[in-house]
Amino acid sequence: MARLVLKFGGTSVADVDRIRNVARHVKREVDAGHHVAVVVSAMAGKTNELVGWCREASPIHDAREYDTVVASGEQVTAGLLAITLQSMGVNARSWMGWQIPVRTDNSHGAARIEDIDGSDIIRRFEDDSQVAVIAGFQGLAPDNRIATLGRGGSDTSAVAIAAAIKADRCDIYTDVDGVYTTDPRIEPRARRMDRISFEEMLEMASLGAKVLQVRSVELAMVHKVRTFVRSSFEDPDAPGMGDFDNPPGTLICDEDEIVEQQVVTGIAYAKDEAQISLRRVEDRPGIAAAIFGPLADAGVNVDMIVQSVSEDGTRTDMTFTVPASDLDKATRIIEAAKADMRFDIIQSEGGLTKVSVIGIGMRSHTGVAATAFKALANRGINIRAITTSEIKISILIDGEFSELAVRTLHSVYGLDKVRP
Amino acid sequence: MARLVLKFGGTSVADVDRIRNVARHVKREVDAGHHVAVVVSAMAGKTNELVGWCREASPIHDAREYDTVVASGEQVTAGLLAITLQSMGVNARSWMGWQIPVRTDNSHGAARIEDIDGSDIIRRFEDDSQVAVIAGFQGLAPDNRIATLGRGGSDTSAVAIAAAIKADRCDIYTDVDGVYTTDPRIEPRARRMDRISFEEMLEMASLGAKVLQVRSVELAMVHKVRTFVRSSFEDPDAPGMGDFDNPPGTLICDEDEIVEQQVVTGIAYAKDEAQISLRRVEDRPGIAAAIFGPLADAGVNVDMIVQSVSEDGTRTDMTFTVPASDLDKATRIIEAAKADMRFDIIQSEGGLTKVSVIGIGMRSHTGVAATAFKALANRGINIRAITTSEIKISILIDGEFSELAVRTLHSVYGLDKVRP
Repeated sequence: MARLVLKFGGTSVADVDRIRNVARHVKREVDAGHHVAVVVSAMAGKTNELVGWCREASPIHDAREYDTVVASGEQVTAGLLAITLQSMGVNARSWMGWQIPVRTDNSHGAARIEDIDGSDIIRRFEDDSQVAVIAGFQGLAPDNRIATLGRGGSDTSAVAIAAAIKADRCDIYTDVDGVYTTDPRIEPRARRMDRISFEEMLEMASLGAKVLQVRSVELAMVHKVRTFVRSSFEDPDAPGMGDFDNPPGTLICDEDEIVEQQVVTGIAYAKDEAQISLRRVEDRPGIAAAIFGPLADAGVNVDMIVQSVSEDGTRTDMTFTVPASDLDKATRIIEAAKADMRFDIIQSEGGLTKVSVIGIGMRSHTGVAATAFKALANRGINIRAITTSEIKISILIDGEFSELAVRTLHSVYGLDKVRP
Repeated sequence: MARLVLKFGGTSVADVDRIRNVARHVKREVDAGHHVAVVVSAMAGKTNELVGWCREASPIHDAREYDTVVASGEQVTAGLLAITLQSMGVNARSWMGWQIPVRTDNSHGAARIEDIDGSDIIRRFEDDSQVAVIAGFQGLAPDNRIATLGRGGSDTSAVAIAAAIKADRCDIYTDVDGVYTTDPRIEPRARRMDRISFEEMLEMASLGAKVLQVRSVELAMVHKVRTFVRSSFEDPDAPGMGDFDNPPGTLICDEDEIVEQQVVTGIAYAKDEAQISLRRVEDRPGIAAAIFGPLADAGVNVDMIVQSVSEDGTRTDMTFTVPASDLDKATRIIEAAKADMRFDIIQSEGGLTKVSVIGIGMRSHTGVAATAFKALANRGINIRAITTSEIKISILIDGEFSELAVRTLHSVYGLDKVRP
């Protein structure tokens, strides 16, 4: 008997029929003797509708009122799933964030969870195996008002609940059946991984593999919550679905649990990047802060930063990337602060892609980067910038080569599916 | 400066544009220096949608979960109205039932309000004239879960809030502009009353004048909450709308406040009544309980009851009315319990109408009933049954005479509008 958290996103609970399908997944685990907490999102489309009404009411609106309106979506789904489970003979009840409570900070609209009291839920597990159906994405702020966690917050809710009730596993049911070595739409030979470490998943998530929200992976890593990505659209009672030790999907876990570590685990990519270069920047202490401070203040997400070493110690070149959608804004901010930033000219270009090679094994293997550079060169793909971390190599290239680069790297590191 | 509660129903908040119109009504009162609490319903259609989902999930469902789902409708409206008010420069915040809290009993789905703590709302009135936007129809049950008050509960919420914060008046904004001497669709010469007593309104409400829920009028009477019925669709800034002493609409108040008391105030009617007669019922103690007990247990709403005096003291006739929709059910119950009820035969008929003459002045005037009987007789309308109370005469007639009877009575008691 285990303690499980199951999380279902908006497309999995889009209508009452799909909610019934979700209930069958839950019932399968309950019938197997597990104690289950379920975290649900709003029905697909509902959150957008609610957000739309807030905007229509006023383009600039009080985040506390926005939270009140938007959190109603998860409230509806939680109640409906509890009703459906009861109709199948499963003992269940719904919990709103304020009832548990899931305590957050006061940052309405993008709150952080500070504390979850799991005692009531655990007591009901032990009293009569009651399933807790929890409205995701919401908590109670210190002002005794509803706070939402920001978009994608239901994944974070699920992981945080799992940590609070010391669950054996947090199963994230989604519209894909696991985490792949790269995007299968680009590389059909991409393989579903059985396991991936938290650190690697964090790089995959933040680099464009949209399976899980970055925040939820961070949280899972900190609290060592074994998190499992699986499909909600498969038949809940298909063979193997209830296999506790080896269900179909990808386990995100501590690297200790991964026996045979690959050098490279996956290839991620992020399209629509833009590059900004400042030429002949005055090379003085504090210049980076002078450049990136105003950008951060304006909410521009600066990613790769490459500062070349200046020849004479007085002037240098500074290159960095931003999402293409932020390029105009970033350029305006820099032009406006030119006097303070002290550069000669600014150059910028959009339509770029960042390809990343990820793998914990990299830490103990040399030559991983060289392999990538050589493989890309062989295909005639020009490298514009490179940044590296302990477990990742990111390479900025022209957007037109995106798919070719992903396939080339996927193949060169031996990630391609073996043909049967 | 006064303390006001304003209540807006579903059609008044059906979309963001209408919510903006509601906000203008609120702002008008705030600008006049009043302290305002607003009680809102769900957007028109929303409650039905939510109820529909609950039924689709399971025909029989946990009332606590139903409450969780359905109460989300008012939550959305309250947040949106607060946002809209803020965008107009009005200091406002939303309150859910559990935040105030509005404490109810444990009868989920049809809960009764037990206690409201108005202190936070009053403090914010006094601190910075903040408008309280309150989700109607909901409260917090002793189990720390959301309870709804049953359909039409937002009127009750508004009156209860008004009592709790000792408001000077509770303005019910609705889709009619007041209470009329009878239904204007039947009698175009019906007049809008300036004032009507709680007792009279109670009879009007329960007899089919659908302006206000019966429960809310009861509550207003008990707590002496001056309740004002007015239109939400008039231009909020039209002349006279902000007139505190004499706004357009009908004041429901204590009879002391009504200087010139009419003998008859209004004519109400209820169509689709059915009559059941039990012939030669054994005339023994407890026979009424034997008949009406099983009907009450089955939730059949028995209205007029007429027991004729038996000739010889052994057998009597018992006639009563039920809503036509309950006729089959009532007949089945009676047939099944025939042995216990001890009657000879049962006769029933649908398609009847109950017309009622209402007026507090009746208490001190004689001949009011005789006037009605004579007027109906002159029109050839047959009277099937009569019941009277201190302030009401109800007459059961064939449905085809409904409109004629209403117009005849309206005219004979001098209620017709004087032609200009």
